[in-house]
Amino acid sequence: MRVIRKIAETKDFINKIKKTAKTIGFVPTMGYLHEGHLSLVRIARKKADFVVISIFVNPTQFAPNEDLKNYPRNIKRDKALLEKENVDLIFYPSAIHIYPRDYKTYINVKDLSKIMCGNTRPRHFQGVTTIVLKLFNIIKPDIAVFGAKDYQQALIIRRMTKDLNLDVKIITGKIIREKDGLAMSSRNKYLSPRQRKDATVLYHALRKIKRDFSSGFSDPKRAKRIIRQLIEKKNGRVDYIAIANKNNLLPVKRIGKDTLVALAVFFGKTRLIDNIII
Amino acid sequence: MRVIRKIAETKDFINKIKKTAKTIGFVPTMGYLHEGHLSLVRIARKKADFVVISIFVNPTQFAPNEDLKNYPRNIKRDKALLEKENVDLIFYPSAIHIYPRDYKTYINVKDLSKIMCGNTRPRHFQGVTTIVLKLFNIIKPDIAVFGAKDYQQALIIRRMTKDLNLDVKIITGKIIREKDGLAMSSRNKYLSPRQRKDATVLYHALRKIKRDFSSGFSDPKRAKRIIRQLIEKKNGRVDYIAIANKNNLLPVKRIGKDTLVALAVFFGKTRLIDNIII
Repeated sequence: MRVIRKIAETKDFINKIKKTAKTIGFVPTMGYLHEGHLSLVRIARKKADFVVISIFVNPTQFAPNEDLKNYPRNIKRDKALLEKENVDLIFYPSAIHIYPRDYKTYINVKDLSKIMCGNTRPRHFQGVTTIVLKLFNIIKPDIAVFGAKDYQQALIIRRMTKDLNLDVKIITGKIIREKDGLAMSSRNKYLSPRQRKDATVLYHALRKIKRDFSSGFSDPKRAKRIIRQLIEKKNGRVDYIAIANKNNLLPVKRIGKDTLVALAVFFGKTRLIDNIII
Repeated sequence: MRVIRKIAETKDFINKIKKTAKTIGFVPTMGYLHEGHLSLVRIARKKADFVVISIFVNPTQFAPNEDLKNYPRNIKRDKALLEKENVDLIFYPSAIHIYPRDYKTYINVKDLSKIMCGNTRPRHFQGVTTIVLKLFNIIKPDIAVFGAKDYQQALIIRRMTKDLNLDVKIITGKIIREKDGLAMSSRNKYLSPRQRKDATVLYHALRKIKRDFSSGFSDPKRAKRIIRQLIEKKNGRVDYIAIANKNNLLPVKRIGKDTLVALAVFFGKTRLIDNIII
């Protein structure tokens, strides 16, 4: 397993790999890896000949008041985990090389980036699409694997990839959960023991809406009310509850098969997201 | 010379060319070709093994009140001209394939896109960078050649190419002029015989400022005043006069070697641009 920090060196290495007609699988991450990330790495390992993981806590997707500085990092542990997964290359750049002082170029995916998480975090997805496009241009993957917990992110990246005529196949993994149902996230680390327990309400609420739908309930207003009550009982502060068409994220009038139910909830200062497809 | 309209077919063809390790030279155009375009084609022909020209009147770089509908077109003549220049491939897509109905992704180069032409045409450069990136992703050129009349455009594209870690070398040609000094432009066609005569004042004014600098005059305010007087005497309406650092387009306090003097002027409804490096 190689670890390269410099962009030019990574490009040279990738160009050599490309010459032997190997397919490249890519998983962009912000590090502090958990089983969710590793499940994506395994998909890439299965589908491609050469697997590249990037580890980069991308400053442009954090707002000034957010947790960029405190975002958990452990490169040593990450390397050991990726070595075990037979990763071929870790791209681990520093911020100043990715965004030099005179950096000016940003990608925007209209509409999809302004709702849900984009409403609370107005420049978040601009930062995400910009870094992902840059990484695609450096790594030149044939396939790239994204997590399903960040449903909106994966949808936006699919849209960008298609719109910009890129030759990258986007694959989405499955949400990997702790035994009690909490979706794995690097941010779970922020939770107090009490908050950690309470946070299981996200998945329980989502599951309840899915069960209710099986029993004939399909009113999004009712579903939102139930979710909100469950969450607030556990001291969660709802950021948003979206009950939406899974392809365009627009609100639906009736819950149906394939409806997306997505949540963002604060426990203290920690903002968690989760979702389910009905 | 091949002419392909479909994106997927173009990509397949380009991928075949790439396999034989040929370098690809690319000149994006909006068609209605003149000697300015052809000078760029000749640069590409000289520097690359395989030359691709795109002809696409890009709707996203026109504002609703601008001349998209009337922009001159003559694909038959363009094809004949490019055949003579030994072009290998013309990519001639239709708008609905480039921008499908659910299209959402745009590129923005901050600061540089908001001044000069970007001040008068607020979304113009967003349209330019978006189409150029898409074309780069389809054609995968090693080098791309842009005209020097659109100085700001070439600078913005250089910035985008560097920022997004693209492997395209950007080359800028020289401004090609009519015998009387008017910079060649597809839009010159709009001018009445009288306006056509008057429009030579752009280059004359730029040359005067360059001569004045050789004689020791370096005050941008004085230069702007002189340019404005010359232009208004010929019934031109100044859109902007910029006297700026040629690398960041910021106004300079003293004209020096390497200062950019750039103009946009209306003659009737026709907006012409020109520039000179002192």
